[in-house]
Amino acid sequence: MPRVLSYKIRGLIASSRLLSTSSTSIRKMAPLTVESLNPAILKVEYAVRGELAIKAEEYRTKLKSTGHDLPFDRIISSNIGNPQQQGLDQPQITFLRQLAALMEYPALAELAPGVFPDDVAQRAKQLQAEIGSIGAYSHSQGVPLIREHVAKFIEERDGYPSDPKNIFLTAGASAGVSLLMSMLISSRDSGILIPIPQYPLYTATIAQYSGKPIPYYLDGSSDWNTSLEEIKLALEKAEKEGVKPKALVVINPGNPTGALLSEDTQIELIHICEKHELVLLADEVYQSNLHKPDTHPFTSFKKLVSQLKSSVPLVSFHSVSKGVLGECGRRGGYFECTNFSPEILALIYKMVSVGLCPPLQGQIAVDTLVRPPKAGDLSFPKWKEETDKIHAALAERTRIMADRLSKLPGVECVNSPGALYLYPKITLSSKAIAEAEKHGKQPDAFYALQLLDETGICVVPGSGFGQREGHWHYRLTCLCPGVEEYVGKLEKFHHGFIEKYGV
Amino acid sequence: MPRVLSYKIRGLIASSRLLSTSSTSIRKMAPLTVESLNPAILKVEYAVRGELAIKAEEYRTKLKSTGHDLPFDRIISSNIGNPQQQGLDQPQITFLRQLAALMEYPALAELAPGVFPDDVAQRAKQLQAEIGSIGAYSHSQGVPLIREHVAKFIEERDGYPSDPKNIFLTAGASAGVSLLMSMLISSRDSGILIPIPQYPLYTATIAQYSGKPIPYYLDGSSDWNTSLEEIKLALEKAEKEGVKPKALVVINPGNPTGALLSEDTQIELIHICEKHELVLLADEVYQSNLHKPDTHPFTSFKKLVSQLKSSVPLVSFHSVSKGVLGECGRRGGYFECTNFSPEILALIYKMVSVGLCPPLQGQIAVDTLVRPPKAGDLSFPKWKEETDKIHAALAERTRIMADRLSKLPGVECVNSPGALYLYPKITLSSKAIAEAEKHGKQPDAFYALQLLDETGICVVPGSGFGQREGHWHYRLTCLCPGVEEYVGKLEKFHHGFIEKYGV
Repeated sequence: MPRVLSYKIRGLIASSRLLSTSSTSIRKMAPLTVESLNPAILKVEYAVRGELAIKAEEYRTKLKSTGHDLPFDRIISSNIGNPQQQGLDQPQITFLRQLAALMEYPALAELAPGVFPDDVAQRAKQLQAEIGSIGAYSHSQGVPLIREHVAKFIEERDGYPSDPKNIFLTAGASAGVSLLMSMLISSRDSGILIPIPQYPLYTATIAQYSGKPIPYYLDGSSDWNTSLEEIKLALEKAEKEGVKPKALVVINPGNPTGALLSEDTQIELIHICEKHELVLLADEVYQSNLHKPDTHPFTSFKKLVSQLKSSVPLVSFHSVSKGVLGECGRRGGYFECTNFSPEILALIYKMVSVGLCPPLQGQIAVDTLVRPPKAGDLSFPKWKEETDKIHAALAERTRIMADRLSKLPGVECVNSPGALYLYPKITLSSKAIAEAEKHGKQPDAFYALQLLDETGICVVPGSGFGQREGHWHYRLTCLCPGVEEYVGKLEKFHHGFIEKYGV
Repeated sequence: MPRVLSYKIRGLIASSRLLSTSSTSIRKMAPLTVESLNPAILKVEYAVRGELAIKAEEYRTKLKSTGHDLPFDRIISSNIGNPQQQGLDQPQITFLRQLAALMEYPALAELAPGVFPDDVAQRAKQLQAEIGSIGAYSHSQGVPLIREHVAKFIEERDGYPSDPKNIFLTAGASAGVSLLMSMLISSRDSGILIPIPQYPLYTATIAQYSGKPIPYYLDGSSDWNTSLEEIKLALEKAEKEGVKPKALVVINPGNPTGALLSEDTQIELIHICEKHELVLLADEVYQSNLHKPDTHPFTSFKKLVSQLKSSVPLVSFHSVSKGVLGECGRRGGYFECTNFSPEILALIYKMVSVGLCPPLQGQIAVDTLVRPPKAGDLSFPKWKEETDKIHAALAERTRIMADRLSKLPGVECVNSPGALYLYPKITLSSKAIAEAEKHGKQPDAFYALQLLDETGICVVPGSGFGQREGHWHYRLTCLCPGVEEYVGKLEKFHHGFIEKYGV
């Protein structure tokens, strides 16, 4: 069971530069106390932006001041898959940015002749004719034409029909996951099967909606394979504890593990969902982050559910934040529902309509995600060059990092075939564990805090993703400007750590 | 108590243009039924995008087909305050659109020399230096520099300090309201005081988080004044029913009423919150939509809470979707917390971090909202011309519409001094009510459906906002391209309706 740590408050409030309101008045009356709030909120934990990330932000501020005493000159935020962040600066895809600029300011097509390739200008015109101004609310489910393009993309990817009525555009995949959790968790004994390690969005939203996580362990000793046996054990345990399983979460390619499921395993997972009447929630946001596509290809669950003619209700999530676009700040994504009745789809529509609509620039990016320039298009050569470079750099960095980290004493690191991360396992000495306890920290959080303090590299301890009792990990992204310098820092730190605390 | 109607499903799913997945497999197994879902979801209702809006969308599709038999040639979506929607086309503010385009594609500054005024280019450079790429996640609370600008705007507006640490940028005001509701509703007996009529976001989110609305009635016979007596009655009733009030929602300027609170009333409301230990949730998204600013100015609750040195916890919401920007599709807004402890602020931060960050183009628009061009700036003359025109058009349309609607038999219409709406009261004959009943509709929904069927104008019936037993209303926006034609249609329809059903 993933440990739900109490949330640590850290200097979040400390760095105000303007006048602060008087705190004396707060003391007069305090109707709003932590105890008066929804207790579910207190249980929510999201380590990716937790204690370490907050401390890293403090350091970042400190680095701007002259005469700081930090032993590094910049923060590397490896805690979050944010390719375009300052310091990493993954190149922006020109086609998307040109299109987005034209959508913002259509007059540019005439004011800046020759700047925009014809195919970009045509695309903008087509979208403008459909959408009008991107300053208007769209259909709550997303612009109908863009949903048609998503359906077409899915049909071409899988070879099976897809219908725009089943597609909901969202503000990133997270918004869709949160919505589905809020709908599927019907009472306090509703359980959601989640892989361990998992992306903490799942435990966070399950906690928020007062459901129960049903953890199933991935096999770290075997490239983070999904074991059906583990799922069966988890289901048995849930039954014993009176927890009613409602859905199975699968992250493929894995986060934080980077693992890719085999089709055989996927088919077994579909059968498990059929047998136990589970909704299958397929987080497929890393579907195009494949480092070894020949040996580790991606197959969507939608394709297999269609092929098997399975009746399993499936929700597949995708996003513009990952892949080669890496457009996190835009908040764009979609989910496709399969085997959902019109009544349930109408309920989902009702819920998304309360939030009005996904951000239009996110929707534009989804359109680009599913309709990139094609061979023969004016923008294709540049697109190809830009995206090939991003794919190659990520694959190369992943390989080098996994290789070098694996060679460190006490470190085991699976060479991820997909996604943006590595999840090395670290052996920690009893001395290190005792020292961590003395500081009131999980041992891997202690390791990660030391790493941050000494190198400015911010990672997320495995305790944030879940791990077997007595195992310790951390997740780091394979996004970095100079891999040699980055790995060098990790190596140097690790050697220093074991020198201090032993292996 | 606002009536919670069961949600009507309407042809939402009907108009697919692509292949539909086979429905036979759905019948084999149906683990996902409406009954298996979170029951709170079923109670959510959001009339602004409900039955009428869905029917209007069907008509819009039908209008595109040749040889349709509809008695109108376009849909006017007066159901939603969406100024830039197709057909209304409120002009876009050039300064914001130029800035947004440069943020999307910074190379434009050099590729299109002379297109961007210097002050726009400078603003873009400053924001780029702070943010980097808008394709990156920002701080979950919003870009720190933009929060500083918001704080400065509030300080200048109110004459009291504001602190960026208390400010959270959001994906529109709705996202902030939903978040606060999810935190404040701690159990099924948690009550939230809401005005009736209200913006249905409030009843929707209270239902979603299983709280209890505590309705207090606004006085339609007196320009929709907020009556303290009504609030006291509502509190007494709640106490009798075992409902624990947690917060008071005030919408100022009002939605759907357009009313503006007097400072005296605001002060009384603050005292009520003090006495009953309520959090004050101030929806102030229409603060700059003032049609008679001399007689009906806007005063923020923040200013009065500061002036009174009150310890009432206050959340004030603002948005880029309304005002003169009308940039709904961007999903930008903010809320400011006053008298919140660092612990509660840290909990809010944790919750927003699960959603990663608000859309960056929404944040850019917030920056423009709080830092418009000033006199002397290169872009100021155009900005002034554009915004003056929008203000004047809205005030003029509101006046004409209120005036003409008031003259219709059986219609009373307060001439709103603020916001984007009118909320006429309609007297319906017993014959009309009986006919509505025969169709299983609320009488004002019946009226609104007839209006849509005959004119293509989509409004929202008062039953979606709440009203006193036996009173009937509808809300319509004062956004329309040609006010004469629009009001003419409303008048003609009304005369026809009373001819058919009597007054």
